[in-house]
Amino acid sequence: MSETLKRNHHNKKTVAVRQGAKKARKPAQKPLSRVRVFALGGLGEIGKNMYVVEYEDDIIVIDCGIGFPDDDMLGIDLVIPDVSYLTANADRVRGIFITHGHEDHIGALPYVLRTLNVPVWGTRLTMGILQYKLEEQGLLESAKLNCVNAGDVIDAGVFKVEFIRVNHSIADACAIAVHTPQGVVLHTGDFKLDITPIEGEMMDITRLGELGREGVSLLLCESTNVEHAGFTPSESKVGSSFESIFLRNPDKRIIIATFSSNVHRVQQIINASISHARKVAITGRSMMNIVKAAIDLGYMNVPDGTVIDLNDLDRYNPEQVTIITTGSQGEPMSALYRMAFGDHSKITLGSSDLVVISAHAIPGNEKLVGNILNEIYRKGVSVFHDVDVEVHVSGHACQEEIKLMHALTKPKFFVPIHGEYKMLAVHRELALGMGEKPENVFVLETGQVLEFDREKAAVTGSVPSGRVLIDGAGIGDVGNIVLRDRKLLSQDGIIIVVAGVDTEACMLVSGPDIVSRGFVYVRESEELMEESRRICADVIEDCLDRYITDWTQIKNYIKDDLSRFLYSKTKRKPMIIPIILNV
Amino acid sequence: MSETLKRNHHNKKTVAVRQGAKKARKPAQKPLSRVRVFALGGLGEIGKNMYVVEYEDDIIVIDCGIGFPDDDMLGIDLVIPDVSYLTANADRVRGIFITHGHEDHIGALPYVLRTLNVPVWGTRLTMGILQYKLEEQGLLESAKLNCVNAGDVIDAGVFKVEFIRVNHSIADACAIAVHTPQGVVLHTGDFKLDITPIEGEMMDITRLGELGREGVSLLLCESTNVEHAGFTPSESKVGSSFESIFLRNPDKRIIIATFSSNVHRVQQIINASISHARKVAITGRSMMNIVKAAIDLGYMNVPDGTVIDLNDLDRYNPEQVTIITTGSQGEPMSALYRMAFGDHSKITLGSSDLVVISAHAIPGNEKLVGNILNEIYRKGVSVFHDVDVEVHVSGHACQEEIKLMHALTKPKFFVPIHGEYKMLAVHRELALGMGEKPENVFVLETGQVLEFDREKAAVTGSVPSGRVLIDGAGIGDVGNIVLRDRKLLSQDGIIIVVAGVDTEACMLVSGPDIVSRGFVYVRESEELMEESRRICADVIEDCLDRYITDWTQIKNYIKDDLSRFLYSKTKRKPMIIPIILNV
Repeated sequence: MSETLKRNHHNKKTVAVRQGAKKARKPAQKPLSRVRVFALGGLGEIGKNMYVVEYEDDIIVIDCGIGFPDDDMLGIDLVIPDVSYLTANADRVRGIFITHGHEDHIGALPYVLRTLNVPVWGTRLTMGILQYKLEEQGLLESAKLNCVNAGDVIDAGVFKVEFIRVNHSIADACAIAVHTPQGVVLHTGDFKLDITPIEGEMMDITRLGELGREGVSLLLCESTNVEHAGFTPSESKVGSSFESIFLRNPDKRIIIATFSSNVHRVQQIINASISHARKVAITGRSMMNIVKAAIDLGYMNVPDGTVIDLNDLDRYNPEQVTIITTGSQGEPMSALYRMAFGDHSKITLGSSDLVVISAHAIPGNEKLVGNILNEIYRKGVSVFHDVDVEVHVSGHACQEEIKLMHALTKPKFFVPIHGEYKMLAVHRELALGMGEKPENVFVLETGQVLEFDREKAAVTGSVPSGRVLIDGAGIGDVGNIVLRDRKLLSQDGIIIVVAGVDTEACMLVSGPDIVSRGFVYVRESEELMEESRRICADVIEDCLDRYITDWTQIKNYIKDDLSRFLYSKTKRKPMIIPIILNV
Repeated sequence: MSETLKRNHHNKKTVAVRQGAKKARKPAQKPLSRVRVFALGGLGEIGKNMYVVEYEDDIIVIDCGIGFPDDDMLGIDLVIPDVSYLTANADRVRGIFITHGHEDHIGALPYVLRTLNVPVWGTRLTMGILQYKLEEQGLLESAKLNCVNAGDVIDAGVFKVEFIRVNHSIADACAIAVHTPQGVVLHTGDFKLDITPIEGEMMDITRLGELGREGVSLLLCESTNVEHAGFTPSESKVGSSFESIFLRNPDKRIIIATFSSNVHRVQQIINASISHARKVAITGRSMMNIVKAAIDLGYMNVPDGTVIDLNDLDRYNPEQVTIITTGSQGEPMSALYRMAFGDHSKITLGSSDLVVISAHAIPGNEKLVGNILNEIYRKGVSVFHDVDVEVHVSGHACQEEIKLMHALTKPKFFVPIHGEYKMLAVHRELALGMGEKPENVFVLETGQVLEFDREKAAVTGSVPSGRVLIDGAGIGDVGNIVLRDRKLLSQDGIIIVVAGVDTEACMLVSGPDIVSRGFVYVRESEELMEESRRICADVIEDCLDRYITDWTQIKNYIKDDLSRFLYSKTKRKPMIIPIILNV
């Protein structure tokens, strides 16, 4: 894999030099069209990020991420954007440009590329992670992947697409400046300002400032931490916390859970381990994959002999080992989860262990993380998590960094992106506080189209957009009706009433039988079930006596009578499915 | 209601004076038995608080609360403690003593009193709230309710039960000191130290200190905020935040959501409204009930003419009105929820409104609160919630206050209570840091029995304990099997296969018919359903051809073949229910 990437990465055909970007800003001969910008995901929601820039016959896409299902989307694994606008205009789509390798920015590509196989551009680590994903799905052969470095500018139809280094909780993250005939559209991606990053350089605020001086027409800036004052601390802050934890716990085995994609965090754990003469073992599939990719691609520096196999753990004393693991979000079946519940084949937790959760629970995951912590404490393990010491910092800009982005880029128009509506609304207030004009700031919903030229911008309509639900192998085959049924089933269960009827003789010849699931414990409710059976039998016989043979009608009578009876007895409303067999 | 309470409250028969408590500490004639203490709920979990103190023939209970169902307890409304130990020993139970009127301390009484109708003791507001609840359930007549004041000591068998004022987010909260033949068991209830409380007095640290000086045998101390450093701010801090919000928003209608039981918070909203010449309207059933009760019982001071009817809202300008509402936890169908989703019959939100969420989301409710905030922002409303300014303070002690409790009471033995295991474990560390001996600190699980005398304490066994699930009208009729089925149904739905078989002729005479719910959208999956039908028909006919008429066997074949087929096509595993009718 790394060879391909290294080769592509200096592919002169596709990588233009920065000067190329200036051409787009030459005065046009005829009156210019307006640029259209919209999101297919990422506005009014967390994740599923996908943004589109369109000018006449050219379309480019920024990011292609997954979202997670809402609590009421029972059984749904993932959510991806509805890309029907793009597939309907596939011949005009010049490429998908990826800001960084997190799931909410690349995760939908394995689904979307099946119907929209356009070139994809991203930095090396991003493409390395994507390659793994596409390989798993058997899509790698057909995919058109292209590697860039921060600073590169790509020709894509009328657009020049410039990658600009930012800092984030994954290496090789970029903002993307799209040079259009109506000026620059700057998409920040996810970013923070890290003045002392672990590897690579600080966010390229010089280039952002240059763009601002030359004139940014439209800023799309992320909003994840816009509700938090101040600056996000540097990733290196976590390194000093690790250092002090290692120093104070010389007799413990140290187990650290973090996001597998946070290559710099993992590097810091390895650094602390080396400086305290510990070997490092790695557990969890995604952690092992990403560490391997990061080492292969040169994003991580691990001296030979540092990493040991999990099978060799028992050759070392506790104080000679650090274990890096997945599961920092409490994910069921992750390596840390299995350790906590005594289900990990190689690692048994006990009082000689120290567990560090180097992450902050994503909203909605608090309980999962809490469950794991409870079990870990029950085993007598010592624990550090982010209520104790700074063992985690965010990868997203807080208010002061977001203000810095606005101050550097001085956009004419502004659209807050990446966040629930409340965050976008707070970001709007922040922009107004920076002196931006209310008529130039747009809080959009996914699908709403903003059109602009150098004078003004306006919402002019919308494109089809929405959520496509992934359930198992199915893409989009579960919709509202199925979800509504799952919700009903989950609340009070189901009652099935089956009867065989001889319609010619107008006679009940078999049943009715009653089967229930998820309603009550049947063995302790025999009377209730028997009474239910009797009610159904009465309804059917009464109908047949009156020569009613319209089954829909009989079924409705059964539903009505049985549901009224059960509600009166139990205050529950199970789904009732009457089935009448014509015998 | 208030009359009854006021009468009971000076009932001399049952309220002893403080000196009475000393008798219990007189040296005994014969060797004393040990005191047994255990929880029926509240250890290793949030809520469902219920603690038991037992000495020879006497049992008393402290609190009787509900818990909320875990995420995987689908369809369950509430969880209450298993009180089978108490009902089996009903003749020995001298009473239930309530620390304060929150649901997780009184909510299970309407269920438990049905089978264990013993006297209940609590302060006036606590009993006032309980009366409402029992009245709703038709249990008020039979209940034996008794009112006390902080400072009162109640005789209960061999025990003297002393109520001691604490501060909390509800008025009239108490710690309970149980004077036993083996010394004092001090149960803190939920508490904080509020040096400047809104109404009533500061926590009675003097009395706690006296008990400590005389000797506390066992401290049971709450752990809710034990992971948080420092002191919890005074409730009055919120008042000054309100004052500045009112001052800076003289042109807005102000809508404040908070917990209905936080009488002092509501009082402060009313105070701020009065000082800014605003009328107050109240919406939400529980808010209206509790405000009424608090005014009736004298816990709230509201000048005549301050509160207006919701129907009269349109007689006032926005800036002349404050609205106090339920829904601070994002509860679906609460008044604030209905406002946010445009579904409130009297209140329509718009840009002249300011909404204040005066609460912190309880873990697990973050998303619900976020959903409401998004909708409120979408309506152009201004919002303050606890990320912005101090519009909420906790009702629970942080680390320094917990340390104060330990320092005052100097317990010989200590059991951390009220919290998930991780909190209890952190509380244990805190106690060791205060110099308590490891062998005297016990992190217990619900049901585990701690026995102690003046010399030593030990875990000696356990009593039956657990969770009784409330679903609709059913108490305990939903168990693991029903929950497992609901979970399965919620993930991939159900497929019902119905066939009529003539067993004598060994012939399939009707069907098989296939009905599905919550699996796929059937109209778009006709081929899949038809293929499923064919597979089932093949299985049945094949069985009948081989004269297999054991229905269980045929059903298992159907399940196996159909489930394999469906998984191969969809990667889903719906529940499959084959039903064969004997015709």
